[in-house]
Amino acid sequence: MRFHIENNPDAPQLYHVTPEIFDAAIRGMPDLAGKVEGSFGCNQDKLGEALKNAEVLFIHGRLRVHNLGSLAPRLRWIQSTAAGVDKLLPLVPSHVILTSTRGIHAEKGGEYALTALLMLNHQVPRFVTAQRRKEWDQFFATPIAGKTVLVLGAGAIGTEVARLSRALGVRVLGISRSGKANPAFHACFASQQLHDILPQADFLLILLPLTQETEGLIGRREFDLLPAHAGVINLGRGAVIDNDALADKLRKGELSGAVLDVYPEEPLPRSSPLWCTPNLIMSPHCAIDDAEHYAQRALEVFLANLCRYLNGETLINLVDKVLGY
Amino acid sequence: MRFHIENNPDAPQLYHVTPEIFDAAIRGMPDLAGKVEGSFGCNQDKLGEALKNAEVLFIHGRLRVHNLGSLAPRLRWIQSTAAGVDKLLPLVPSHVILTSTRGIHAEKGGEYALTALLMLNHQVPRFVTAQRRKEWDQFFATPIAGKTVLVLGAGAIGTEVARLSRALGVRVLGISRSGKANPAFHACFASQQLHDILPQADFLLILLPLTQETEGLIGRREFDLLPAHAGVINLGRGAVIDNDALADKLRKGELSGAVLDVYPEEPLPRSSPLWCTPNLIMSPHCAIDDAEHYAQRALEVFLANLCRYLNGETLINLVDKVLGY
Repeated sequence: MRFHIENNPDAPQLYHVTPEIFDAAIRGMPDLAGKVEGSFGCNQDKLGEALKNAEVLFIHGRLRVHNLGSLAPRLRWIQSTAAGVDKLLPLVPSHVILTSTRGIHAEKGGEYALTALLMLNHQVPRFVTAQRRKEWDQFFATPIAGKTVLVLGAGAIGTEVARLSRALGVRVLGISRSGKANPAFHACFASQQLHDILPQADFLLILLPLTQETEGLIGRREFDLLPAHAGVINLGRGAVIDNDALADKLRKGELSGAVLDVYPEEPLPRSSPLWCTPNLIMSPHCAIDDAEHYAQRALEVFLANLCRYLNGETLINLVDKVLGY
Repeated sequence: MRFHIENNPDAPQLYHVTPEIFDAAIRGMPDLAGKVEGSFGCNQDKLGEALKNAEVLFIHGRLRVHNLGSLAPRLRWIQSTAAGVDKLLPLVPSHVILTSTRGIHAEKGGEYALTALLMLNHQVPRFVTAQRRKEWDQFFATPIAGKTVLVLGAGAIGTEVARLSRALGVRVLGISRSGKANPAFHACFASQQLHDILPQADFLLILLPLTQETEGLIGRREFDLLPAHAGVINLGRGAVIDNDALADKLRKGELSGAVLDVYPEEPLPRSSPLWCTPNLIMSPHCAIDDAEHYAQRALEVFLANLCRYLNGETLINLVDKVLGY
C-alpha cells in the first residue's frame, strides 16, 4: 500500500515529518514494515505525480490543490497533521475519509490555557496596556480559587485545563454539542444552554473548531451576557467569535481582558484594530503547538491509523464531514 | 495596654484596618477583650498625640515621622502590615521591636509567581512586544515540565510556588541565606552557591527582601551566568537587581524575557527606559497582595502577636534588625 507524506515548506520546522523521523518511528512497528511504501514531498505543484498511486495522504496545513479527486484516483484517506480541519475539509473528495490529530495538543494547549486564565485573573492584559502608555496603574486582584471558568469545546485541551485549574480551586464548567458528562468538569452542558450559563463565567475559554455551527457563535449578545469583570480566551479558531464586538467591549471596560491566539485572517493584517485594543494580549497562532513533540505526536496518530487501515479497522479521529470536526 | 493602628490615607483600601474590621476580628478572641484599648488614625501629623500612651503601633507602609523615640516614649513594639520592612526599619528606635506580616502573601504571591513562570515559558513577553510593533512573530514553545526554576528567597511565597509548579513537573531549586533544606524544593542551596547554580536555571524567581546583603545582589555578572533562553522574575524588592543590566540583556536577546513587579523607585518614573524594554512585562507593585484578604490576614498576625505580647511570649515574624528581615 502506498502513502504520501506532504510537508509544507512555508510551515515552521516543528511540523515537518521528514523521512528520518518517519523511519525512526516505524522501526518500532514491525506490523507495518514491508506492508507500506511511502513517498515524501514538499511542493504541492508535484502533488499529482506523488499521488498517482497513493491510497493515503498525510498532509500539513492547507491543501492548495482543488482537484484532488482527479489528481489522485486511488486516494481513500487523508490524515491531517492538524486538529482543526476547516480549511482542508472542503477540498476532500466525497469518497475520501479524513482524520485529524485531535488530542495531541492536550499538554501544551492545556498549559497555555491555564497561563491565559491566570493572566486574566491577575489582570496582566491591563498591566500590559498601562505599560504601553507608561502609566503606573495599580490594581489588586484576588486568587483564582473559587472562580468559574466556562470551557466551550470540552475536548482534549479542555479536559487538561480542567484538571490543571481544578488543582488551583477553580470551578470548571464545560459546554459541548451533546452536553455529555466529562468527569474532569464540575458540570457539563449542551450548547443550547450556553446563554443560561454565560452569566456565571468569570472566564470564558473558547476551544471550538470552526464549523457551520460554531462560525460567529460568540458575538455581541454572548459577550453582553458575561459579567463585566469576566475575561475571554480564544485558542480555537478565529471566526468563532466576533472580534469587533470583543474589542468594543474591551475598550468600554465591559470585559476586563482577553487573550487571543487565533484570528479570522492569519497573519492578522497590520490594519487590524486588534493590535492596539486595550486589555488584550495576542499571540500569533502558536500557543498550543508543542515545538518539541508536534511532528512526532502527529506521526503517532498517523501510524496508529495506518495499522488500523491495513487491518480494515475504524480509524481514530475520523472527521464527521457533516459536523466538520 | 494601649495600642494604636495607623492607616495610610494614600494606600489602596485593601490595606485599611478600620475599627469595624478590628472589632469583628477581636470578637472571637476573648483573651484580648478588656485587656487592650486601641485608637485608630489616618494622619501621621497627629501620630505624636496618638502615641503618647501607646505601647504598640500597627502601621501600614512608610513611617514619615523620624523622631519616633521621643514622640512615643512608651512604645515597645511595632507591627508592620508589610512583609518587607526595608523602608520602616531605619526609623524604628533601637529599644523597639519590629514584626512583619511575612507569610500572608503566600497564596496570592505563589499564584502570581506561577503565572509569571508560565508567561515566561510560553513567551508571552515576546508576544506582547511583537503586538506593540504590530508584528506577526510566531514562536513555538514547549511545555514547562522538566524545566528548572531557581527561587531566590525560599520563604512563604517560594514554598507555595514550589508546590504549584512541581504539580506541572517543574524542577524547583531554592536559595536561602542558610541553605536550610525545605521539603517543598527539590534541592536547597546557601547564597554562597548562587553563581554555581545560576547556569542551571531556566527561570530565576527573585523573592528577596531588601537588606544590606541583597541590595544589588543580581547584576550583570549574575545575569551573564544564566542561559540565554532563561527568564527572570522579580517580585521582592526592586533594588535587589540591576535593572539597567537586565534591560540591556533583554534588548540584546541574551535573556528571553522578564516579569517585574517592583522597582528601585516607585512609582516608576515615566523617564525610565524599562517601560519600552522588549520582552519585559511589568506590573506596578500590586502582584502579590490579595485584594480581598490582605487587611484581615495582616490583622490576624497582629492579633496573634498581641496575645503573645500580653502573655510575655516571643512574637512571631520578629524582624532581625541586623539581617533586615
